[in-house]
Order: sequence, then C-alpha cells, then structure tokens
Amino acid sequence: MRTPVHEYLAEIRDSCYYYSQGEVATYIPELAEVDPDQFGIALCTPAGTIYAEGDAENEFTIQSVSKPFVYAMALVERGLQIVDAHVDVEPSGDPYNAMSVDPESGKPSNPMINMGAIVTHCLVGPADATPQERSDLIIESLCKFAGRKLEVNEAVLESEFANRYRNVALASMMRSNGFISIEPDDAVWGYTRQSALNVTARDLSVMAMTLANGGVNPITHERVVPEWVCRQVLSVMTTCGMYDSAGDWLSSVGIPAKSGVGGGIIGSLPGQVGIGTFSPRLDSHGNSVRGVEACERVSRDMGLHIMAMPAPSIDAIGQQSRTESGAVLVSIQGALTFPTAELALRRFEEIPEDESEVVVDLTAVPQINHVGDRMLREGLRRLGEDGHQVTLVDPHERIPRPMDHDRRRIPVIDDFATFEDAET
Amino acid sequence: MRTPVHEYLAEIRDSCYYYSQGEVATYIPELAEVDPDQFGIALCTPAGTIYAEGDAENEFTIQSVSKPFVYAMALVERGLQIVDAHVDVEPSGDPYNAMSVDPESGKPSNPMINMGAIVTHCLVGPADATPQERSDLIIESLCKFAGRKLEVNEAVLESEFANRYRNVALASMMRSNGFISIEPDDAVWGYTRQSALNVTARDLSVMAMTLANGGVNPITHERVVPEWVCRQVLSVMTTCGMYDSAGDWLSSVGIPAKSGVGGGIIGSLPGQVGIGTFSPRLDSHGNSVRGVEACERVSRDMGLHIMAMPAPSIDAIGQQSRTESGAVLVSIQGALTFPTAELALRRFEEIPEDESEVVVDLTAVPQINHVGDRMLREGLRRLGEDGHQVTLVDPHERIPRPMDHDRRRIPVIDDFATFEDAET
Amino acid sequence: MRTPVHEYLAEIRDSCYYYSQGEVATYIPELAEVDPDQFGIALCTPAGTIYAEGDAENEFTIQSVSKPFVYAMALVERGLQIVDAHVDVEPSGDPYNAMSVDPESGKPSNPMINMGAIVTHCLVGPADATPQERSDLIIESLCKFAGRKLEVNEAVLESEFANRYRNVALASMMRSNGFISIEPDDAVWGYTRQSALNVTARDLSVMAMTLANGGVNPITHERVVPEWVCRQVLSVMTTCGMYDSAGDWLSSVGIPAKSGVGGGIIGSLPGQVGIGTFSPRLDSHGNSVRGVEACERVSRDMGLHIMAMPAPSIDAIGQQSRTESGAVLVSIQGALTFPTAELALRRFEEIPEDESEVVVDLTAVPQINHVGDRMLREGLRRLGEDGHQVTLVDPHERIPRPMDHDRRRIPVIDDFATFEDAET
Amino acid sequence: MRTPVHEYLAEIRDSCYYYSQGEVATYIPELAEVDPDQFGIALCTPAGTIYAEGDAENEFTIQSVSKPFVYAMALVERGLQIVDAHVDVEPSGDPYNAMSVDPESGKPSNPMINMGAIVTHCLVGPADATPQERSDLIIESLCKFAGRKLEVNEAVLESEFANRYRNVALASMMRSNGFISIEPDDAVWGYTRQSALNVTARDLSVMAMTLANGGVNPITHERVVPEWVCRQVLSVMTTCGMYDSAGDWLSSVGIPAKSGVGGGIIGSLPGQVGIGTFSPRLDSHGNSVRGVEACERVSRDMGLHIMAMPAPSIDAIGQQSRTESGAVLVSIQGALTFPTAELALRRFEEIPEDESEVVVDLTAVPQINHVGDRMLREGLRRLGEDGHQVTLVDPHERIPRPMDHDRRRIPVIDDFATFEDAET
Repeated sequence: MRTPVHEYLAEIRDSCYYYSQGEVATYIPELAEVDPDQFGIALCTPAGTIYAEGDAENEFTIQSVSKPFVYAMALVERGLQIVDAHVDVEPSGDPYNAMSVDPESGKPSNPMINMGAIVTHCLVGPADATPQERSDLIIESLCKFAGRKLEVNEAVLESEFANRYRNVALASMMRSNGFISIEPDDAVWGYTRQSALNVTARDLSVMAMTLANGGVNPITHERVVPEWVCRQVLSVMTTCGMYDSAGDWLSSVGIPAKSGVGGGIIGSLPGQVGIGTFSPRLDSHGNSVRGVEACERVSRDMGLHIMAMPAPSIDAIGQQSRTESGAVLVSIQGALTFPTAELALRRFEEIPEDESEVVVDLTAVPQINHVGDRMLREGLRRLGEDGHQVTLVDPHERIPRPMDHDRRRIPVIDDFATFEDAET
Repeated sequence: MRTPVHEYLAEIRDSCYYYSQGEVATYIPELAEVDPDQFGIALCTPAGTIYAEGDAENEFTIQSVSKPFVYAMALVERGLQIVDAHVDVEPSGDPYNAMSVDPESGKPSNPMINMGAIVTHCLVGPADATPQERSDLIIESLCKFAGRKLEVNEAVLESEFANRYRNVALASMMRSNGFISIEPDDAVWGYTRQSALNVTARDLSVMAMTLANGGVNPITHERVVPEWVCRQVLSVMTTCGMYDSAGDWLSSVGIPAKSGVGGGIIGSLPGQVGIGTFSPRLDSHGNSVRGVEACERVSRDMGLHIMAMPAPSIDAIGQQSRTESGAVLVSIQGALTFPTAELALRRFEEIPEDESEVVVDLTAVPQINHVGDRMLREGLRRLGEDGHQVTLVDPHERIPRPMDHDRRRIPVIDDFATFEDAET
Repeated sequence: MRTPVHEYLAEIRDSCYYYSQGEVATYIPELAEVDPDQFGIALCTPAGTIYAEGDAENEFTIQSVSKPFVYAMALVERGLQIVDAHVDVEPSGDPYNAMSVDPESGKPSNPMINMGAIVTHCLVGPADATPQERSDLIIESLCKFAGRKLEVNEAVLESEFANRYRNVALASMMRSNGFISIEPDDAVWGYTRQSALNVTARDLSVMAMTLANGGVNPITHERVVPEWVCRQVLSVMTTCGMYDSAGDWLSSVGIPAKSGVGGGIIGSLPGQVGIGTFSPRLDSHGNSVRGVEACERVSRDMGLHIMAMPAPSIDAIGQQSRTESGAVLVSIQGALTFPTAELALRRFEEIPEDESEVVVDLTAVPQINHVGDRMLREGLRRLGEDGHQVTLVDPHERIPRPMDHDRRRIPVIDDFATFEDAET
Repeated sequence: MRTPVHEYLAEIRDSCYYYSQGEVATYIPELAEVDPDQFGIALCTPAGTIYAEGDAENEFTIQSVSKPFVYAMALVERGLQIVDAHVDVEPSGDPYNAMSVDPESGKPSNPMINMGAIVTHCLVGPADATPQERSDLIIESLCKFAGRKLEVNEAVLESEFANRYRNVALASMMRSNGFISIEPDDAVWGYTRQSALNVTARDLSVMAMTLANGGVNPITHERVVPEWVCRQVLSVMTTCGMYDSAGDWLSSVGIPAKSGVGGGIIGSLPGQVGIGTFSPRLDSHGNSVRGVEACERVSRDMGLHIMAMPAPSIDAIGQQSRTESGAVLVSIQGALTFPTAELALRRFEEIPEDESEVVVDLTAVPQINHVGDRMLREGLRRLGEDGHQVTLVDPHERIPRPMDHDRRRIPVIDDFATFEDAET
C-alpha cells in the first residue's frame, strides 16, 4: 500500500491553488519577474520523511525566512542574555521594514523584523569579521539547517543592495543606538546576502523540522543548535513571525511560522512537523497568500495546533502488574517528562511496603528530559530506601547509572527476559 | 514511599516567597486590607492529582482570572464567528483597564482586558436576562470549572461597584460601538459580580487543568466546554493573558496564563498541568509578583514550556513484529495524532504484499484525534485492498466500526490473546 | 456709494458654493434631514458692522462651536490654573469624540474635543447646580456672546441624548480620572443641551468677533469675558479647533477657528474680524466643507492671516515736531503697545537736554495696553527728571493721572488747541 | 533721558538667570565643554534697534535654529507646492531626532525636526551641487538674515559628523522614501555644516526680526525672502518650533520660536519684535531653560503674544471732517489692511451724494497690503462714479496711479497744504 499522506497533501495543495489573489514583490526586477503561479508545499516529519507536492523543488530566495535561523545562531554564539540585551522579543504591529524600537532602550522590537534581523546578523561571527566572512559563516549554518549546500542568488543580491536605503536607515539607527558596531552599509550588505540564498520548499520543510526537532536535522541527524535555542526561536516566531495579527495567527493556525517576501513560509510545530511552502503572490502584509492558506489547512485538517497537543499517554503509563516471578512490574510508556514522571511516581507510591521486588521497565520510553530523569532517579532512590529491591529494564540507556539511597548502583538489564530468566 | 513532587513544589514555594516586593491593589478597601504575605500554589495533573503548598486554601476574589472562562462560555454559546465579530484576539500592549479598540472596527482588542471581558460577559445568556440572571449563569459555569460551589464576596462586589466609573466608561463605549445592547451600568454590575467570586489557589489549579484537559474537569470528569473552545482560549491567553510583554512571557515561561488583581494567576499547559497561585502583592502591570515567579520556576524546573513539547514516541510506535502464529503485528503506542499516525502508515507501507495476515494492536493507544482516526481507517482500508487480512486489537474502542475496502467490517478483538487462541 | 465688501463676500460665497462634496451628519435624524445645500456666511468687524451673504439667518444647532465659549466661561469662573489642572491644551490628532487623554495625568487633551468639553462644561457654575441650572448658566453666557436670546432645539437635544453612549463613555472616564464629580449621565445631558442651541451664521460672526475683540461684544458693547481669557481661548482654537492637521490649518488659513457637526464654523482673527459660516455638508474630519473653503478664501483674498499682521505704524508714530509756541511735540499715532511705546521712548531720548517744554499728544492713540501704559509713564517721568516741562494731550484719558519724578501730576489737557492758547 | 527698555531687558535677564537647572548637551565634547552659565538676550525692533543684555555677543553654534531659515530658502527656491510635497507641517510630538513620518506618504512630519530639516537642506541649490556648494549657498543666505558674515565652527562640524549615525538613519529613510536624491552621508555632512555656524544672541535677534518683518532685514534693509515665505515659516514655527507641547507654548508664550541644542532660541512676533537668547543649559526636550523662561517673560511682561494683537486703530481712522475750503476730508491713519480699509469705505458710504469734493488723506498710512490697495482703489472709483470729485493726498505713494470709474487718473498731491492752497 501507499500511505495516503501524499494524497492529503495534494488535496491541500489543490484547494489552496485557487487562492490566486495577491501580488509578487516588485521592488526589484528579480522578484517582480518570477512566475507568480508557482506553488510548492513540503512536510518533514521528526523521522525525516519528506512529503512534497507541486513546485517544491523550485528555487527562490529565502529572504526573511532566514531570520529565525540567524537569531538561533546569535543565541548559540552569544547566549540568551547578550542577545536579549540587543533585541526585544515583542510583536510590534509594525511592518517588517519599520523603524520599530523600544522607546526607552532603543532596542529593536524583535528579531523577525528587518531592524532586529540586522542586529542579530551582526551578532554572528567574530567582531572583526569582514561582511563576506560573516555572511559566509551564516550561510554555512543555514546549509546545516537545510542539510544541503545552498547558493547565493547574485543577481538578487546586487539588485537588493542597489535598493538598500531603507535597510541602511535601520542599520544606521542601530549603529546610533549602539546595537551594532560595524558600518551600516557593511551590515546591510551582509544581511542582504544572507537573504539572497536560494532555497526550495523542500529545504524549508527540513529547516523548519530541525527547529521543531530540538535542533537536530532530521535528515542528516546533525545537531545544528541546542534545544533551548529552538524553544526560544519558536516562541519568538509564534508572536512575531507572521508580521501582523500575532493573536489571530496563534488562535487560527497555532503553528510558529515565518514568512519571506520571496514567497516562502516555514511552519514549525515542536515535535510534530516542519512545513515549507513557496508561492510568490503576497498579501498586504507581505505573507505568501497560498502559503498562509496552506498553513491554516495543515493546522485544521491535520489537527496540528500548538494548543491541541495530546495529553501524555496517561492510560498507558505505569500500568502496575507483576512479572511471572511475582515481582511488582511498573512499565512506563511514552516520553518521560514531568506529567508522565509524576504518574510513574504515584504508581511507586502505591506499591505496598511488604513487596520485596520491583521491576521498572523503560523499554517503551523513547525520550526523557532533565526533569523526567531527575524525578525517576529520585523515585528509584526512595523505592530502595523503603526496602524494595529494584531492577531497571533500560535497553536504550535512558537513565544512565541510577543509584539507590546508599549510592549503590541499581541493577540495570537490557531485556525483560533476562530478569525472568534470572528469577526462575 | 512518598512522591517527591510535594517537595519540588515546596521548594518552588520557598524560593518564590522571598520575592516580597510589589503592592496589594488599593483601589478598594477590601483588597487593600488583605494580608500581603499570603502565598499559595497548587498544581493539578490531567489525572486529577492536586499538589498544593502554602496558603492554597485561602480565599480571594477571582477578578480577571474569570475572563478566559467567560470567554470560553461565550464561545460555547455563540460560536467562534459571532464572538470574533465582537472581540479581537490581539495583544494590545495597553493596561487592563484601557480603552483599547481596533481603530477601524471599534472592537475591543481582546477578551483578557476589561473592555473585551465586559463584551464577552454580555454574550453569555439570553438577551433578555437580568444582570442577576446573567451573572448567575456565569457563576454556575465557573463552579463547574472549579468542581465546587463558589460564593460571591458581597463586600467586594459592593465596593468595586461604587468604584465603577472606569468600567462604565468602557461599557458605554462598547454600547456606543454596538457590541453590547444592555445598559452600561447593568453590564458593569454583572461583570463586577463575576469578578467578585471567592476562589482558592487549589480551585484555580483545577480550573486551569480543565482548560488544559480539553474542557473536561479532571476531578469531576464533567465536560465543561468542548475541546476547540479550550484551544481558542489557551491561544488567546498565550498572547493576551499577562497584560504586558506577550513575547517575553511566551519565551521565558511558555505557559498560557491569566492573572487577576486579587492576586491569583492560572497557568494552563495543554495536556500537561494546571497551575493556580495566590499572592496579593502585584507588580506594576497588576500581575502577582510571586505568582509570576512561580510560573517561571515551574516552567524552568519542571521543563514545562509550550515549545518544549516532547516529540511523539517515535521509537515506540508501530514496531513491526510477528505474532506467535506468524501474522505481521503492528503495535501502536501513544496518542494517535498526525505524527504518530503517519509513522503507523509508513509501517503499513513496509509490509510485503505476500503477507496474508496483519494484526494492528491499539491496546497502548490512550487517545486518538480526528486526523488520527481518519488516517488509521484509511490505512486499514488500504491494507485490505492490497489483499491482507486485517485484525484490529482495540479493547478501548478507539476506532469504532472500521471498514475495509469492500465496506465490510474489519474484525476487532479485545485482547491479543484472543487472536492467538483463534489462530492456534 | 455702497461699500464693495458686500460684493467681496458674495464672491466668496459664490465660489465656495460649488464645493458640493461632503455629507451631512447622520447619527440623529434631526441632523440628517437638514437641507444639505444651505450656505451662509457672515463677517463682523471690530466696529460691529456685519456683512452677511446667503443663508446667514438660517438656524442650526451650535454643537461643538459652543466649546471655545464654554472653555472661556470656565476660565472666567475658575481661573487659568484650575482649568489647566483639568484639561490640557495640546492638539491630539484624534477624532473629536475620541478617548484622548494624557497618558500620565489622565487629563483630556484639550477643551475642543468632546472629552475636554464635557469637563469644561462641568467647571461652570456652582458644584451643586442641577444639570438644568448649569446648562441655563452656560446658555445665558452664550447669548451674551451672540448678543441675542438663543433657544434650545429640544428635538435635537432629545435625539442626541438618546444617542448618548459615546459621550457617557467619555464622561465616565473623566469621572473615573477625577476631573468631574457629577454623574456621567447628568454631565452628558447638560453638555448635549449646550450643544443643541440654535444659532445662525450671523450669530456666529458676532460671537467670533467678541473673542477677537478682547471679550467685548462689538454689537452690545458688553464685556462678556476678560481679555486674557480671549487670548487663551484663541490660542487653543489655533492648535486644536479644526480637529485634524493643526499645522496645515495654521499655515494655510491662519485664523483661529472652531467647527461644529451642525455645519457651523467660527473664525476669530484678533483685532480684525469675526467670521461665521454655515453649511451642513461635512468632510471626513467633521468640518463643514464650504465653511473650510470660505475661511481659506477669506484668509487669502482679504489678507487675513495671524502671521500677516501689519507692523505697528512705525512711520506715523512719534513724529517729532514743534508746536507753534516752539515746544517739542511728540504725536503718537496708533495703539500703544511695546513696539510703539519703544519707538515713542526713543523719540524722547532724542530730545536735547536744553529743550524746556515737551508736549506729548495721545489724541490719535485708540488703545493702550498695560506695557504701553507702563512704558509711557516711565518715559514721562524721566523727561521730567531730565528737567523738561511735560504736558500731555490726552482727550480720551488713555493714561489716567500720570506723575512726574517728584510724584507731582503732569498737566493733562484735552485739546491741543488748549495748549497753544495757553502758550500764546 | 535713556529709554527704560534696556532696564526692562536687564530685569528679565536677571530674573531668568536664577534658573540654573538643566544640562548642556553632551553628545560631543565641543558642546559639553561650554561654560554652562552663559546667558545673553537681545531684542531687535522693526526699526532695527537692538537691545542686548548679558552674553549677547558670545558665539555658539546655531544648530536647529537654522532650520526655519533653511525652510524659508527652500520655499523661495522651490515654491510652496513642491516643498509641501516633500515635508509636512504637522507637530509630531516626537523628539527632534525621531523617525517621524506620515504613515501614508512617508513624508517627514515637519521641517523643524532633523528629518524634515535634512530634506529642506537638500531642496536648496541645484540638484548637482556638491555638499560643499549647497552648504555654502545656505550659509550665505543665513548671513543675509543675520546681516553679517558668520563662520563655521570646524571643530563642532567634525565632531558632530563623527557622531552622525542617527542623522544618517534619517537621511537614508528619506532617500528610501524618495524625498532626497543625494547620498545620505553627503546630505548629513551638509546639514551638519549648516548647523555648525557660529552666531550670537544679537545675531539671532536680527534673524528673528527679519522673519517678523516680512523678510526684510531690519538692519541692512535687504529683502532676504518674500513676505509669504515668512508667513509660512512663522506658522510652522508656531506649532513645531519648540519640540514638545505646541499648544502649551502657543497659549503661554504665543511667540513663534525655534530652539537649538547649542543653547540658542529665536522668537519672532510678526511686525513687533525679534528675540534672540543664548544659554547652554537645556531642559529634557532640548530647549534652553533660561531661553524658554526669557521668552515667557518677554511675552508676559511686554504684552507680546500673537493672540494679543492690538485692534486696528478704529477710533483714529477715517475721522471724517472738512477741509478749510469745505471739502469732505477723510484722513486714514495706520496700516491699510482689510479692517482699516473696511472702515474707510464705510466712511465713504456716509458721504452725502450732494457733496462735490472729497479729499482722502493717506499721509498717516505707513503700510498698505494688497487687499487694502484693492479696496481703497475700488472705493475711490465708486466715489467718482457717484459724482464726487476726488483728490488723494499720498506723499509716500501708497497707492500708485489710482483711476476713477472712467479710467481717468485721480489727482494725487503730496501735501495737504497744496490742496488747501489750490482751493483757496
């Protein structure tokens, strides 16, 4: 059989295709002359499967879709505190190219508008990097997000730079306010080069999934940025990514997203999906008309909305039973985070004090985060303290080297059968 | 053993207790005279477990924390379209009692500021309801969210109403703009009564978890509002709930929240946790100082952030194996939503055409949403079309009455053992 | 002969008549149903001559044109300091019915928008006046400005009050911010009554000239308000009177003005002219289309612009000559203010020390202000100190009881001939 | 005797001297290092008399005080329509160096903020002028306003230009919006040079009086700009000159003014006085503290307020009498503008039809504007038409070549005695 996901995506593509209003960007000839009817869409899953329909292999310039990734790079290099000191994270309600600063600090409103993006561009790389070197570093990193080599569209770069004065105004204001220290023209050249990178909708889906995947590229499996950086970037995309109407986007679509004037949009739903779309006709805010519609359809038709996250698998976790040998068995299923760990610990609580042996099975635990780790360790420690003899089944080493209350290693086995064999 | 969650919460309580800055609200004597040092915190889990520390049983008036719930009631009664026509969902950057309207439509910015909340108050109940009747209906519904009978603080009601002119200004503007049709004084009286309900931090945690639980009260198991309503309310709380700095709250805390001038805060993380805090000292935006700090600590210490959702249990889903009788076995584990269903269907794709029997086991599937249902049904249908003989193990009836390609019912059994017995 | 001013005004009327765009106000039937083609214009001179053309005797409701006069009344009753503490004088750029307050003080932006006008309404009369009494007082004063008995249009009053909610919102906010202390509904009723007074374009020209005439009605010669009040009111009309575009109005028209939604406009050029126009079609800001055009024409065609004030009559002042008897004669012509007094004193300076007699002739001095008085007295005193024997010709008693340096009265005569007779 | 004006001014200087709060501008060392206690004040009258007190001869850089003059130059060269198409005339409420543009047109708010001043700078001179040439032209014109050669402070120019980025941001935005066509850096250099001109308070008083004098330098008697340009510039200074609080400045001071960060302020009261002050301590808006206070004192103590203009000399004008020979005599006194001409024409109206001879005496008319000219000519024509024989006494040729209704020249004589001699 063939999975019907291809067909679902084709349906979405077809239904959005009829949205033919909007206009391509015209401020430079290279954008004005693209075929306005192009439309491609791609989904990338956490496992790296890519579903693509339409013109998903056509190239276009990444433009503002580069902004969240460069913000991520700045966070990696400088840390949250320093980046926060250079750019706010508040939706501005202003157009993408507005002079939008905090009235007191003079900081740009957020890194998703040009002003903030020029600042984050300048935060990447060594202070004495040339514009060429800085933009090379950024492009190198963007390639890691995409998982392939991307090329600069030199014609777009040249044409955009000839038309640079608005961005020079923004960069000069940032220089005046002390948030960049290089010449405004240089900052704008590098920023324009970053924006002139050619990508496809397929590339964008991978880049989006990398953000949604905690920073690990789902295709190359390379860790591009740390998880906390993704959390920060996705948060900012949620309120500031789609230019206008932060509240409307969040309630009606509920997928952190970012659009670019080249016609691209990314959508990143943490742990779920990366979306890349390309269609050059833009609405009055500069968002791709079909891309916006496609995101809405994906959200609605596929139940993908940040506020519609499934509850943890509460029925399936920690079902207490017994091994054949009579030991108490607690099998945990699903990612071990606070809610699931809380459930597991409550199961531990229910174990009668006179039970001697307890087996905790993590075979079906695909992931564990720091709080899940902390809680489970503490639970195991306390079980020992209460006099239970604890064995851990942990074939994937989710909890390396757990200790009991006497700081002795708790026995860990790879396979449940091992335990049963040992018992019998 | 005793689960360490109590201790984690006590730790958070203790560390936040030292934040003693801020001032209690003073605009009415009843608020000015509360003990400013009170501090309670409660967590409620999807399974209905409540962890509470400090003054979590002390009563205070719910004030603006009632707003998301009344917005939910309006959505239930009137539907999204009509409610959207009466109130926007955009963060305003204005104070909670501002005259904050869309310049073109005259609509209030969002239902979390007084102006929008007065409008949503008036959308509840029949048009000819008296102020008493309307506020009774609302209070009844608030009690369902809390799972217990709540009482109006009559002294606060009287005192706030005597001090009503700012809200009368807001209501009069809404009457003038055509968004309410009752007398401004009446609207304000009912709204003030809704806000004067006595609650505890424990109540708030249950109310918050009800929103985070898709609308089902985790204690009473009553469905209070539909799931789509919760999604909408949580979205609006995310951008508009904490008055100022929508972007900063989302990135640093990442929990949809709402605060009240009485000192209460709720935090609702979908599928994960409901938080209720109470501490009367307020910051300059009118948010409880310790409550804000507690939310930040819960987010950071417990890994609870909307953008840090775990990936679906991709390792544990759809592990293909064989039954003892030799049939292909696909066991699905975890909530069946798009990402998990997509994985399951890809497993189906890998089944060789010459396999005659396929068993799909849903025993470990705790939840399934509409897209998961649609996708799994289609997959089962296609497996039959490819000539496989399919059996579904579905003890919890996650997929009622699945059909094959010939519109014949696919055999469903409750217990895996049944299949094996039948085979052998 | 007949003065051509009538014809000039008829020309202006005719050329403005063709501006037939704009719409009559429609928010109440009484305004919606007026004949939209009415157009009247009247000019009143400082001497009380009225030139009127077109429908200058047609009645319409005064509406917001009442605002500067009620502001004047508040200034008279409470003084500048107290009024300043209740209402700012800054152009808001907001519509006339906006919630436009200073973000820090909560004060309304200016007394020419409804919010500020409701506050100034409430500043008139004793604190315990009933709405009827307060509005009676105000109407009585408006009648003094007009020089005749004006009547309330009861149908408009009733209809506007039924439609009162926007103004109730403004009044409630003012009550909440502490700038009024009566019930919002009462304040709005009185304010609406003040606005429902019937006037004609002719009335408006007299009212405007009263303001431009330092507070003295040019027809009845009654002093209605003091001069400083007119200066303050005209200043505020200049920046805040024509709703939008303060700067544009000042540079292109340069006449302090105020418009009303009933179709009236007043223009007051200090010392020069009072203009009243009536034409019900309004532009998008709520200003009468033909009225605006007429003001522009009057300004341009008649050279009436606040920044085009003639220089003081410098050639004609203080021409030093000699009386027939040989005394030094300084004849002053024109209003004696700083610039003219400065010239006169410089003439005094030039009188050789050996001249014994000096005659200062004020026959041609129509007005003198406090600084002119002070300077001339000082000059006379110093002339005496230098040994000159000074005589003042002052038939109109512009300088009552001038003293010399020894605090002896300087001789004052009524008629120059008297001096010559005495000498000879 | 010595005129007491010196003493009045010294009093003002002394009373303002005690206002020692405020800080000198510190953004460049050259401004930071000036003696903060300097304070000079100068008044210039229409007749060219200068009264100066304190440090009125100390030099400082003109800075933003150059803006109204350069706006005037742009108006002269390009005309009102083209200049209006490049810069608005609306008070912005923004700081002087704000990015303050009309949201629709992208035009700068007014020519008194840096953004607008950079645009008007670029409107002066030929399009292909070098920055040096353009700023030379501007400086040459500024010297004409001052009536002496002014020098550029090269150290200030260099230091300001090193600190240029904020202005480059403004210029780049203006280039982007299409309002300037030269390189932003070049525009800023020229603008900075214009601002770095050394002036004294005495210079400023002459420059201010030139604007207040209809464009004629009161010292050199050179016409620097036409009268309509002064009217436009003074209008814009009134609403936009003192940065904040246009309404407050107009009502409390009522003198069109402009301040500079170098500590200078000019005040220009049309037809009355030019004020120049210098004191380097600035308030939070960047206005000289003592300069502001001095303007307020001059306004209050000297009765100099734009809304306190004296009425035309209505008692003294057109007193009808008879010549010794029995002819009707109408003597007009004072500037002949609309209000005075209207009075004169009404006197003409009162002349009985059977009077044969009428003499109109303009000896005491110092000025006449276009409407006065037009009205008087028409009146003379009509007198002839009614059968009167008219003679004009016009020694200063205020009305060149008046015609009667048959297009015959009306007899004009220089001296009243001539008429009497001829008659007798």
